[in-house]
Amino acid sequence: MSEKRVDAKPRWLHELDEGIDAVPGVESAGIGCGIKAEGLDLALFRCEKPSVAAGTFSTNKFRAAAVRVTEARVKRGSAQAIIANSGNANCCTGERGLQDALAMAKRTAEKLGLPEEEVLVCSTGKIGIHMPMPQVLAGIDRLAGSLGKNGNQAAEAILTTDTRKKTVAVRFDCQGRPITIAGVAKGAGMICPNMATMLSFLFTDACVEQDFLSAALRKAVAVSFNSITVEGDTSTNDTVLLLANALAGNAQSDKKFQRAFAQALKYVCVRLAKMIAADGEGTTKFVEVTVRGAATAAAAKQAARTVANSVLVKTALFGQQANWGRVAAALGRSGVEGYDPASVSIGLNGHVVMAGGAPCEVDKAALEESMKNRDITIEIDLGAGSRTWQVWTSDLSYEYIRSNIEIS
Amino acid sequence: MSEKRVDAKPRWLHELDEGIDAVPGVESAGIGCGIKAEGLDLALFRCEKPSVAAGTFSTNKFRAAAVRVTEARVKRGSAQAIIANSGNANCCTGERGLQDALAMAKRTAEKLGLPEEEVLVCSTGKIGIHMPMPQVLAGIDRLAGSLGKNGNQAAEAILTTDTRKKTVAVRFDCQGRPITIAGVAKGAGMICPNMATMLSFLFTDACVEQDFLSAALRKAVAVSFNSITVEGDTSTNDTVLLLANALAGNAQSDKKFQRAFAQALKYVCVRLAKMIAADGEGTTKFVEVTVRGAATAAAAKQAARTVANSVLVKTALFGQQANWGRVAAALGRSGVEGYDPASVSIGLNGHVVMAGGAPCEVDKAALEESMKNRDITIEIDLGAGSRTWQVWTSDLSYEYIRSNIEIS
Repeated sequence: MSEKRVDAKPRWLHELDEGIDAVPGVESAGIGCGIKAEGLDLALFRCEKPSVAAGTFSTNKFRAAAVRVTEARVKRGSAQAIIANSGNANCCTGERGLQDALAMAKRTAEKLGLPEEEVLVCSTGKIGIHMPMPQVLAGIDRLAGSLGKNGNQAAEAILTTDTRKKTVAVRFDCQGRPITIAGVAKGAGMICPNMATMLSFLFTDACVEQDFLSAALRKAVAVSFNSITVEGDTSTNDTVLLLANALAGNAQSDKKFQRAFAQALKYVCVRLAKMIAADGEGTTKFVEVTVRGAATAAAAKQAARTVANSVLVKTALFGQQANWGRVAAALGRSGVEGYDPASVSIGLNGHVVMAGGAPCEVDKAALEESMKNRDITIEIDLGAGSRTWQVWTSDLSYEYIRSNIEIS
Repeated sequence: MSEKRVDAKPRWLHELDEGIDAVPGVESAGIGCGIKAEGLDLALFRCEKPSVAAGTFSTNKFRAAAVRVTEARVKRGSAQAIIANSGNANCCTGERGLQDALAMAKRTAEKLGLPEEEVLVCSTGKIGIHMPMPQVLAGIDRLAGSLGKNGNQAAEAILTTDTRKKTVAVRFDCQGRPITIAGVAKGAGMICPNMATMLSFLFTDACVEQDFLSAALRKAVAVSFNSITVEGDTSTNDTVLLLANALAGNAQSDKKFQRAFAQALKYVCVRLAKMIAADGEGTTKFVEVTVRGAATAAAAKQAARTVANSVLVKTALFGQQANWGRVAAALGRSGVEGYDPASVSIGLNGHVVMAGGAPCEVDKAALEESMKNRDITIEIDLGAGSRTWQVWTSDLSYEYIRSNIEIS
């Protein structure tokens, strides 16, 4: 790519190893309370000061109880804690499910001595099962006593079918002060760029206004969590939350700070999103689909998403086949208009395989060898404009199906 | 279902075993000419009289050369022969591909002594490879000498990854004369209800006007070939053709005839479409998704298609799991508006599993036992109107992936 990559790290941004523990004034803990048969399943995050809050939420019509509660509370503009469980989505659970979500937040607030509305709640897991509330409430009591710099536990407790924890932390200097942004995420199955896509909890010690924070998060989510897809299904529970506790004491209206913060936040979100795509259930490939030369960003995004979601493209990649005809077929049915198929070119792993609507001469041996790599690039130029969009996805493997049969 | 099923056979309609051989004045043949490594790959269909023609075609932007040639010829309103090959889609093959499609039709016309424009051409198979024209042209010469009541050969020669031939023939009496409609189809991979969806060639001896024939075909395709889906990818080559040779000598403007013909045609198309869905690559389930209680037919269709295309729903069905939460999640992201999630009910194999936005008490043992059946029904009531749509699909299995890796 000649243009600047969306995931390029600016030189002034430093990556840290400590995950969310790197953020001053943020504590967390994770335990197993018995929602899952084994492993950690309940996480608590607390800011020591009241924090400015922003969030993006699932657009699925069957939104989980926790999503409805949390979205309303984020709209108030502040929050100080997040209680999150894996193993049960508490979705399609009716009025009882809503009461359960409220009860989780209420117990957390009591234990932490916070107003109820300052506690956000998130759930992920199987749909249509009532929460095992005695275990959950007892778990909250234990969690409240274990808060500390336990970001690794908390990052693990929100996982479902993920094979590894996902955390990113960065720091940059502004006005002579260090500012930190860090986050955790969970993904794997049910990842699609229709909205917030999975769970991610982000924390920063920056001092920011709520309007600025919301706008920066929305823009970062668009090119990160909303640009990954594993199988096209958008979850009922997708939530991204960002809490800013102001401990860094920077001047919040400084334009230079705002630009740096927005860029750093985007970097954190893209890194987490790519970790999710790379950890799709039972996948063997990490696939970057780039559509350029589009008339609009929306067209580029729609084309990239359709190719990335194509089951035929994904099985061909699992089979390590340079079957670019399936890329053309997926592009052709994407609903994107305003380009001439005869002007389209398609590249696979840097080899131009189609141009001017016809196959190109390629180094077949080199192309086929490159299909064995874990990282695969698909590059499409629509020849109709200057807009670009990138989407990250994975292949579709036997293991994906096994994983989806056995875990629900 | 209380309403009349779209695939119910009227009492006055008789099903025949002879496939397209049942239609007077229609001959065919199928041979292997070397496009595929083995098996039949070239089919020829000829009407002994000039026939009224109708067709529906792929809406994919990368439409194959044959689709462009054939659509233009069908628009003229008449045709007398179809030359069709499997093993090569002749798509994304540029100007040379277009010349190859025209050359196939031209050689067929010469051999049969027909005007060139009276020959339609169809291709299916891999994208981005030029046609092996010497073999194809030699094959056409052989085929022209083998025409006869060879419907079984022709039905086999259009198959790609299908495991069995798909033919249906029906007859009804009208004005004291027998009228026959019959067809062949090929499907398997790349089946999605975005348009004509795969290849089907239909023949009748009815005497009809072109406008009536086109409208009847369009309506029949909407509820049949456009209501099946295997993996959501619409092919670049989808084509449905219908030729009517008028040998039955019926009065074409008789309303009673027109109603019976339209109904019989719909029956033939639905039967062929369901055969295609049941024969999806490496499938173990035949799944009927019914959405009722929708405000509009378009909403019902969109909801049914999204559920039927959900990779998560399809893997759960392969795993024989009654995981209806995935049905709710797919419905919720379908983009259909104008209903209240709290009013939705979901049924699985006749068991109501969700109602009023909450799980229902079910006979769990009976439900789980029913998930072992080959035929699965998913019934969704949106509680927002009176419109219904049905879609047929299959599950997503290990075998599907194997089939899609090895065959392109």
